[in-house]
Amino acid sequence: MKYKLLLAYDGTSYGGWQSQHNAPSIQGQLKKALETLLRTAVHPVASGRTDSGVHALGQVAHIDCPEILDKGKTLYSLNALLSPDIRVLALEKVPPHFHARYSAMSKVYHYHIYLGKILDPLRRRYLTHISYKIDLNLLTKASHHFLGTHDFTSFANEAHRGSASHDPVRTLQRLDIVRTGEEMRLEFEGDGFLYKMVRNIVGTLLDVASFKIPLEDIPAIFAAKDRRKAGRCAPPEGLFLMEVRYLLGEPAAPKRSHGALLSTRPL
Amino acid sequence: MKYKLLLAYDGTSYGGWQSQHNAPSIQGQLKKALETLLRTAVHPVASGRTDSGVHALGQVAHIDCPEILDKGKTLYSLNALLSPDIRVLALEKVPPHFHARYSAMSKVYHYHIYLGKILDPLRRRYLTHISYKIDLNLLTKASHHFLGTHDFTSFANEAHRGSASHDPVRTLQRLDIVRTGEEMRLEFEGDGFLYKMVRNIVGTLLDVASFKIPLEDIPAIFAAKDRRKAGRCAPPEGLFLMEVRYLLGEPAAPKRSHGALLSTRPL
Repeated sequence: MKYKLLLAYDGTSYGGWQSQHNAPSIQGQLKKALETLLRTAVHPVASGRTDSGVHALGQVAHIDCPEILDKGKTLYSLNALLSPDIRVLALEKVPPHFHARYSAMSKVYHYHIYLGKILDPLRRRYLTHISYKIDLNLLTKASHHFLGTHDFTSFANEAHRGSASHDPVRTLQRLDIVRTGEEMRLEFEGDGFLYKMVRNIVGTLLDVASFKIPLEDIPAIFAAKDRRKAGRCAPPEGLFLMEVRYLLGEPAAPKRSHGALLSTRPL
Repeated sequence: MKYKLLLAYDGTSYGGWQSQHNAPSIQGQLKKALETLLRTAVHPVASGRTDSGVHALGQVAHIDCPEILDKGKTLYSLNALLSPDIRVLALEKVPPHFHARYSAMSKVYHYHIYLGKILDPLRRRYLTHISYKIDLNLLTKASHHFLGTHDFTSFANEAHRGSASHDPVRTLQRLDIVRTGEEMRLEFEGDGFLYKMVRNIVGTLLDVASFKIPLEDIPAIFAAKDRRKAGRCAPPEGLFLMEVRYLLGEPAAPKRSHGALLSTRPL
């Protein structure tokens, strides 16, 4: 049997979906809980790896397991076994050809920025605090350069071992900037993202918006195919994997209001 | 000079406003930051002690200091010195007779409960998750018994050394129950609260609402003046000190939407 799991997690305490170092990984915690419950070896496969400190509200993983699962009971037991910073939100049986990574059509990431003076202590893990001034008009203009199909080599860190494919061409279908009071959210939707690509794009956009990189340089940065030409990498705490979209079946993520929680309410 | 500080903090990592044990305290952290900045001994006095794990979005403290402070610079420097889980939201000069505790007219506490199946991993530190069924009608009826002026001895733990006065009579002006989807918020406003009083009332209300304590027993619990007769103590993570109200000057807490963030948005 093949099952699709919808996951939410606070990435603060983890070394990412698949940890490279000593920090515990989301995958490791999920694998342990599944194996405790199912009493057999289970290898959860995600839509993609989230980095250390990056959060997810709509990560998708699949598992193969020998038995038919009772959805309600499995969901309850898994969440009882997992630490409260990792939750399985939904579980559904999928056809054998479903693959969390290869069947994905697109992914949605949100990057949350706080531009005010005093960051709410309860939300410090879920927003990146920026204390310098940025030019929103310049940010918007810069963002247009990233839309469409490009070779994103300049915005990708070297992938860790065994990671994503070597084709650096990706299509960004959407890059929206939503500003609400002292908060700003950058919404990315694309067919796939290279290693640290969202954070490198955010870092570059912020460098342009704060006059560190001239807007006119962006085409040359793309053309250089050299990570060192682009801006810095934005920190992980502002980044959320919101949704993974698949062609077959219903949308992977239910409509939840986390986006609103994190960015559209007035402060 | 006397200054009033408006504070917000995530109580998760602290032993309370004034730690009794080895855990760091909010007061200790604030004192350290103030003394680093002002280069003199400073003793911040709060409106009251919040317990270990309890949060505040509108705690008030006063300090005496020998010099006139530049508000903007002091706020900036204090927040730079403090850990991001403690923020000074505002600072204002007050008359010499102002006292954060003795001048307080009333306090507002909110207790946040999540009644659904799967608690958002990003909000796990700020809501108490209840998995048993509760009868909202019974909860509401029970809450009416607490309004007004009572001897709250049965709902107070023994105070730690040097803590509040020994008069156990307090007036609860408001106890509202706000239910929104799978979340519930209990709003308390009173002239003062005994040690663990809000959490003991919440625990008792939940015991009544889950048929562990008969509604009819509440008057006898009050009359017994014995903590052991009441219900359990609700956990600290759901509790927030929202506001301390003073007669003189403007309200201590600016209008912020934390209440909405934590409980009224749809999930």
